[in-house]
Order: sequence, then structure tokens, then C-alpha cells
Amino acid sequence: MLGIDLGGTKTALAVGDVSGGFRAVLRRASQFSGDPEQDLAAIASDALEVVSRAGVSREDLIAIGLSSPGPIDPGSRRILSPPNLPGWTDVPAPAVLEERLGRPCFVENDANAAALAEWRFGAARGTRDAAYLTMSTGVGGGLILGGRLHRGAGWCAGEVGHAPVEWDGRLCACGLRGCLEAYVGGRAWTEHLRSVAPAGGAVALRAGGKEQIQPEHLVAAARAGDGFARAELDRFNAYLARSLVQIICTVAPEVIVLGTIPTAVGEELCLEPIRRRVRERVWTPLAERVRIVPAALGERLPYYAGLCAALEGIEGMGRGR
Amino acid sequence: MLGIDLGGTKTALAVGDVSGGFRAVLRRASQFSGDPEQDLAAIASDALEVVSRAGVSREDLIAIGLSSPGPIDPGSRRILSPPNLPGWTDVPAPAVLEERLGRPCFVENDANAAALAEWRFGAARGTRDAAYLTMSTGVGGGLILGGRLHRGAGWCAGEVGHAPVEWDGRLCACGLRGCLEAYVGGRAWTEHLRSVAPAGGAVALRAGGKEQIQPEHLVAAARAGDGFARAELDRFNAYLARSLVQIICTVAPEVIVLGTIPTAVGEELCLEPIRRRVRERVWTPLAERVRIVPAALGERLPYYAGLCAALEGIEGMGRGR
Repeated sequence: MLGIDLGGTKTALAVGDVSGGFRAVLRRASQFSGDPEQDLAAIASDALEVVSRAGVSREDLIAIGLSSPGPIDPGSRRILSPPNLPGWTDVPAPAVLEERLGRPCFVENDANAAALAEWRFGAARGTRDAAYLTMSTGVGGGLILGGRLHRGAGWCAGEVGHAPVEWDGRLCACGLRGCLEAYVGGRAWTEHLRSVAPAGGAVALRAGGKEQIQPEHLVAAARAGDGFARAELDRFNAYLARSLVQIICTVAPEVIVLGTIPTAVGEELCLEPIRRRVRERVWTPLAERVRIVPAALGERLPYYAGLCAALEGIEGMGRGR
Repeated sequence: MLGIDLGGTKTALAVGDVSGGFRAVLRRASQFSGDPEQDLAAIASDALEVVSRAGVSREDLIAIGLSSPGPIDPGSRRILSPPNLPGWTDVPAPAVLEERLGRPCFVENDANAAALAEWRFGAARGTRDAAYLTMSTGVGGGLILGGRLHRGAGWCAGEVGHAPVEWDGRLCACGLRGCLEAYVGGRAWTEHLRSVAPAGGAVALRAGGKEQIQPEHLVAAARAGDGFARAELDRFNAYLARSLVQIICTVAPEVIVLGTIPTAVGEELCLEPIRRRVRERVWTPLAERVRIVPAALGERLPYYAGLCAALEGIEGMGRGR
């Protein structure tokens, strides 16, 4: 299979098999010309290159999987208007790639594809019920329930980034108030830290000025014991834990996989405090059954995500989805 | 099939078929002698009676379905220690009924069985992704996702009665704070109303005294325009809407079915205000895709619930669950 993970900054392509073995991979800076047709032609050209590097021919490909930012219209398989893909509005990307590459193409939203990747090949392997959350620019999520991807109405299930963690809280980029993303999303968190960090404090000093603060400066200062940094990290953990509590009480997963920021911050300063908060607020038999773990695939996630979009599409055909 | 719905106050038995047609039904006050063996003998005796009334013999039964208050241990199929079943601790009820009645017996927790009933035969018929919530003494819930009952780890999925709707809120009977059940559960709501209702107000007058207030007195006073009653009903709706927002953002159902109190209170004073609040707090494409509707099966729900416990058990065997 050929997997393509289309991101706002990078596009990752890989030729791999059902067991997660890769023959060739390729990563490029994403280019948005303003004309999606042209962007897709560039992607198709990269696709032919990675297929050639893999030593196979197009005809050998069972399918192509496209992991893309959402929203995606399930019926028409069009990519509607993701904020991270400039110039893309209502783009029939799978149909265009099928036309250009001559193989069937399945599209999946990137959070679902990443959830599938961690479930098939990463930290949630072997479970029936798993949730995945990632905190990059925004907050994405996906659910595997009963051993299958749960897409829900409009393929919107698992998008807990815009579920409330503070009932009348901070304004989110989406226009709603109190969303998880407004507290733990990379962009919102960075903005918040730049506005509240003391100008002469440890975090601003590490960053070379308040306006240059990035989450990693806060984390480094927290590791060194800075009080402000610790308190802000504690707030981050508290809000993320609130979201996990709602997920656990609703779908009772066996495992929740946390990507990006929590994985980078690590056990002591992030995962252990979150587990403690969850145990305090969830019915014990339920809390005991859920593991909260860091993502396992790291930098290679996009390759697996594209591959999983293809695998899910093929299996979905078999189930008549 | 023979369906048995075991409740804290009533036990309902029915002989019915896969299309939801009933040959005979029987409802009795539940009796708890302190000895579960004896209670199960009485249930088995009622079962033989309803089978006889249906004009069939035990041998004609494909299976028995038992809808019971949880928690239920999935592995051993034992009913652990439901607060509503006095004297029942770790009871192997399905095995006992199989022994006494000579037919296979499948157990399901009552909220899941009720969710299946509304999905197969009631307000959620024809959907793939449905959530069900009921507010009797406590708050129960169940999820049908991808056209299948989603039980989750420990069969605890959908039990949103103990998910928080107020982060450091009212103490719940379960020991946690701010649970949905502490605000909209029948017992907690009644206690709350008795404590806050003005002694000479419309609600207390209808009830014949503060200590006799029941939810129906509040609802009647609200219909007549009483300000206190309207404000309390508005709080009820607001907390219930918070829970629905979390469910919608997590699993993106096509339909949410609300039983008991919201069904009784009706469109104008409950369902319409809840829909409005949900629309204000959920991303529009998601809010547009979910219908929030009253339960359809009413008084006959327990018969369908027992039947659905049997149907689910049979189908689960086919799927190797």
C-alpha cells in the first residue's frame, strides 16, 4: 500500500505492507500554491517517486491511503475546508489521486488515521477499546471501539478538542468557549504562556523574551523547578485530565494514548499527575481498567497513519461501509 | 425468547419474538428475601407461568434474557452488588436461571438493555450510532455505536450518570463530586427540591408540604408559570444539556433518546430548551446531525429490555463475544 499523510507543514509518503513494514518513505515540506489541483499533482509526483524507490510498480499497490486534516464529507469523500490546508475548499482529493495514480484511494481524517496507527502498530496494540488524543497546533482525537474505528455522525467522533473543560471558559479559535483546545492546544497554550509569563522569569529568560516562548521552554523551566512553570504545567495537566474523565465515563476505553506534548513532557511532570487526577474523579472499577500511556510511534507516526488510512478503507469495503 | 427485567421495585417478564411481538407478559412487585437463591426461585416460578400463558413450552424458548441493575462482572456473568437489589452480592443469576429453566440465559445491565430496546424497537430505530439516557432513581445510560452495543471496559460504557457536569460540584451518592446524577437523578433532584423549595410556595402547596415534594409537583407548578419551578427546571435542563454536549463531542451519535423525566416533562419545558442549549455549545455540523428525542416505549420498556438482553446474547455468540 501507499500511505500519504498530508499535513499543514509536512507531507509524509510511504510504501508499506499490512504488518507495518515499510519499503520506502519520503517526507517533504507541504506546498500550498492556492490551487489544490496543482498541490495534488505535486503529491502524485512524490507518490510515484516513493513507489519507484520501493522497487515496486504502481500496479503492485493494493490501495492508497490518504490521511488528511478534516472535516471530510463522508458521502462525497471531499476534503471540505481544513484551516491547515490553505486554498483547499471542497477538494475531491481521493478521486484526483485515483485518477492520477490509477489505484483506489481511501481518505481518513488525520486524527482517526493516527488513532488507528497507534492501535494497530503502537501503544494501543491488542486492545478492543482505545482512545487517542494529540496536542499539536490544535487537539485531535480518535476512538477505536469494539475493535473498529468509530467515526460517528459526520465522521466527527473523538474530536474532543472542542468539548468543554471549563463551562464558561476561555474563547477558543473555533468560536466556542471553554474547549479543551483553548487550554492544551499547542497554539492556544503558547499564546497563553506568552501573555502570562513574568517578563524576567525563568521561562522568558530561557526563551530569550516573552514573545519567543514555546512550550519546550516552559517544560525545561518546570524540570529545573521554576514555580511559575510548574503551576502552568499543573493547569495543563488538570484540563487534560478533565477531558480524559469525560472520555472514560462515556466510552470506558481500556487505554488512552496521548501524543505530542504529554509524550514529550514525560512521566513525572505530565502522565503521572494526569493519572492521579483521573483516579480521583472516576469511579474506581472504571479507573482501574484504563491505562493512560504515551504514544509509541513518535516521528514515524505519519507513515503509519497513511498506511492505516489504506488498511481501514480496504477493511471497510469488506464490511460494506 | 423469554425476557426478564429485574428492577428494584418491579420485575417484568415477557415471552416475545425477534420482531418485538409479545405472546404474554407478567409484572410483579420485586421481592427481596435476603436470600438471592430464594428470590431467583420466585423469578423462575413466574417465568414458568408467563411461558405457560404464552401457550409455549420451555423447550420452545431459544434463550432467556435477563436485564439487571449493574455492576455485572463480564467474565463470570455474576451480578456484583447493585444498590437496588437488597441482599444480592456476587450472584450468578444467569447460571441459576439456566439450571432452573433448562435454557441458555444471557445477562445485560438494565441501562444497556433499555438502550438496545429503544434502538431495536423504539425512538432510535434505524440508526447506526445512538445514545440512551434515563433518569429514574439514578441516571443510567447506554450506547449503540456502529450498529452494535458498545459495552466498553468492565461493561461500564455509557454510564454517564457519574461523569461530572460541575467540576467541584454537589456531592453524589457515589462519593464523587459534581456527577450528572447529583443534579438530575430522581432521588437527588427530589432531595434538592425539598431542601430549596419555599415552604409556602406553589410547589410545596401542590405537594401538601415541602417534605412531600416529588418532581411531578415541580413540573405542574412550572406549567402553571411558577417562577421558582421554572428556574429549577431550567437548572435541570442546563445540567442535562452539559452531559449531552460531552456525549455528542465524544461519540457523535445520530440520536440521543431521553427516558423518564424528560419524556414526562415534554417538549416545551424540557426537550426544546435542552436542544437549544446543546446547539449553543456544540460545533454546528455536529449539532445539526444529532436528534434529541423522547423515549418511545414508555411503560412497555421492561418487556423489550428483557427481550433485547436475549437477542443481544444470541447475536453476541454469533460474533464470538
